[in-house]
Amino acid sequence: MQLLRSGISLRIHAIFISHVHGDHLFGLFGLLSTFGMMGRKDKLTIYAPAQLQDILNDHLKYFGEGMTFPLAVHAINTEAPEQIYENDDITVHTIPLKHRIPTSGFLFREKMPLRNLHSRLIAKYNLPPQAMVKLKNGENITLPNGDILENETVTYLPYYPRSYAYCSDTLFSEQVIEQVKNVDLLYHEATFLTDKMEVAHQTMHSTAAEAATVAREANVKHLLIGHFSSRYKCDELFLQEAQPVFPHTAIAKELATFEIPLIPLKPT
Amino acid sequence: MQLLRSGISLRIHAIFISHVHGDHLFGLFGLLSTFGMMGRKDKLTIYAPAQLQDILNDHLKYFGEGMTFPLAVHAINTEAPEQIYENDDITVHTIPLKHRIPTSGFLFREKMPLRNLHSRLIAKYNLPPQAMVKLKNGENITLPNGDILENETVTYLPYYPRSYAYCSDTLFSEQVIEQVKNVDLLYHEATFLTDKMEVAHQTMHSTAAEAATVAREANVKHLLIGHFSSRYKCDELFLQEAQPVFPHTAIAKELATFEIPLIPLKPT
Repeated sequence: MQLLRSGISLRIHAIFISHVHGDHLFGLFGLLSTFGMMGRKDKLTIYAPAQLQDILNDHLKYFGEGMTFPLAVHAINTEAPEQIYENDDITVHTIPLKHRIPTSGFLFREKMPLRNLHSRLIAKYNLPPQAMVKLKNGENITLPNGDILENETVTYLPYYPRSYAYCSDTLFSEQVIEQVKNVDLLYHEATFLTDKMEVAHQTMHSTAAEAATVAREANVKHLLIGHFSSRYKCDELFLQEAQPVFPHTAIAKELATFEIPLIPLKPT
Repeated sequence: MQLLRSGISLRIHAIFISHVHGDHLFGLFGLLSTFGMMGRKDKLTIYAPAQLQDILNDHLKYFGEGMTFPLAVHAINTEAPEQIYENDDITVHTIPLKHRIPTSGFLFREKMPLRNLHSRLIAKYNLPPQAMVKLKNGENITLPNGDILENETVTYLPYYPRSYAYCSDTLFSEQVIEQVKNVDLLYHEATFLTDKMEVAHQTMHSTAAEAATVAREANVKHLLIGHFSSRYKCDELFLQEAQPVFPHTAIAKELATFEIPLIPLKPT
């Protein structure tokens, strides 16, 4: 329902599920039915901890009749980071998390863009098309006179590839810090405030201050926090606790969009 | 999620499910989890076709850990009407429907209210309290002089008990008409318009005109229609088809409330 409200296209071919607790999973059942109702034909792959396969098998015993498309579960390793997905634009790696059941975050990285050529240099060397392709791919080329043209002297990166890390649900984890270093945007759960630190640790969740500490130590650009316990009546309390630790913190509100701007780089 | 948005209290002790298709069922999983998170202790009874028991058993294998309350499934007979529920205020009967799997509607009826006494007559006969209770319950009483005081001569009904019938999903059915006669409010599915009559019948659904015909033939006071196929881009088309057949038709919009007024009756 939220996906339909969001206006995001339903032409989804991969779904990433962190763990098989209901609040992270139950929306999948309706989505699969909706895909069936729409007569979807394209394969759908769900990247999730191995437990999902049994759950889906049982679900499809009762609700599999209308499945018009191939469905695959890719069981992820929740103990060590690994690349689980790649397409022309991005890669996805797992981020092992520490929760009551096997849980994994996901690190989405844009691939390095092709390099841009300094136009004045292209004119200077009168380069053939094959040489330009090599340069865009970051390679050096050999000129007709045998000189090596160093890539960096004639090309530049048009923009830095962007990155987003999704970490829910988890205890505070040093390994997460290592893995999300310098990302543009980090979503990190903040189920509790420091006043409920003990409950947070018992239930294997984080406080807002801990989420902000991960963001600060990992030197990320922006932090989104969410998954707030309903025992707190006001979301702003979480911001109040996180921002003194990490100022660039915002609340992940339902259906809100947080855009990571693509920053063009000038040739040097 | 919709229940929370509606502002309706979560102190629910009975849930009525017509059939085990996903669009009528999947919300239950999140609701059970929410009850668990809230630490609910009260028993919950779900009235549904027998198939629900297996589905829930499998579901609770994976998600039963947080169940803090007793949960019972009352398997309903989807072939013949029967009373399945009663409390101080209402009764609930099943309404057998005709769909691709066992399906039942539900008829909610307020019980007869206690009768009101004509105050001038109470004074006239100087009645003791026990006699007044008998009269309020609709019984006759014997006066000290041996005369019978007929209930109807000294009491009146304060209001007519209200009734609501919920019928989704179903083919047009004469038996439904019989069972929902004169209800105050009928919800009847209208998945298609007459232009898709064939698809409607193949998939065992109704058209807007058929829903309106049930309302007209059953002489109900108001009709609500819903469950519209997403192939139609505008809900008003359903109203346009239904209203010439049954003018008091409205669309069951998400989160809208349709109140059946309690009409006080004057003493005669």
